[in-house]
Amino acid sequence: MLLIEKVLILRSSDIFQNTPEQELVGLAGILEEMYLEPEENLFSKGDKGTCMYFIYKGQVRIHDGNYTLAVLEDNDIVGELSVLDSESRSASATTIDETILLKLEQEPFYEIMMNNVEVLKGILNTLCRRLRIMDDKSVSFHNKTLPAVPTV
Amino acid sequence: MLLIEKVLILRSSDIFQNTPEQELVGLAGILEEMYLEPEENLFSKGDKGTCMYFIYKGQVRIHDGNYTLAVLEDNDIVGELSVLDSESRSASATTIDETILLKLEQEPFYEIMMNNVEVLKGILNTLCRRLRIMDDKSVSFHNKTLPAVPTV
Repeated sequence: MLLIEKVLILRSSDIFQNTPEQELVGLAGILEEMYLEPEENLFSKGDKGTCMYFIYKGQVRIHDGNYTLAVLEDNDIVGELSVLDSESRSASATTIDETILLKLEQEPFYEIMMNNVEVLKGILNTLCRRLRIMDDKSVSFHNKTLPAVPTV
Repeated sequence: MLLIEKVLILRSSDIFQNTPEQELVGLAGILEEMYLEPEENLFSKGDKGTCMYFIYKGQVRIHDGNYTLAVLEDNDIVGELSVLDSESRSASATTIDETILLKLEQEPFYEIMMNNVEVLKGILNTLCRRLRIMDDKSVSFHNKTLPAVPTV
């Protein structure tokens, strides 16, 4: 796969959409290509997660046992929180079709993040935006069991 | 206020609970003390937010016009997302009693975060944990309008 293709995949993601091109080239250089067969297990619920995956081509089922939580496709990201916080996987991931993934490990990712404030800001903005969206929705739905303190 | 008191306030917060003591001392040194009267406006909905506040003593009402969203008290944090993403305030904040706050500006905060991977990891872990909690709740409540893709 060409470096430029990897850069384009990174750029299409929620997390890296605002990252400068030069940094994306650096990140693209440390992505590992993975070719998986259909019905191949990527990770299981409870596994320690220290990497995330970009789906280049294919389909990945996110599931808890037989219960399917989501089907992720081209350009989707799998396991983006685990690369940030090293928590265990909250669900399993198994391919549906032949799938090509790009794997990003935590350590080089942190290294690039620590050396470039723009990458860090991009990540933080994305996480904050998601929290704000979920906060808005929780307020909209008057769901009293969700956190009552708004994030202002 | 003693530096050690400021360190203890930082340590009691969700965001800095896992930050090493040495870094907390650094952060405590850049906190600005603010003394507010009752019914004093701290910020208004729509203001650009570039700082967060720790409540040392007092009460702050988070509101949208006359509608109260939350009342925050001693050791609570006000505006923690805005220091990270510079978005505008999603609600207003007004004191109820006399209130002592500690103000943390974005720029020195970023500087400390970029120079210490432990501080950065603490922040990222906190944001990810919140997203995981909200994700769990959204799954529990089968709220179909919340994001369908689980964060694994």
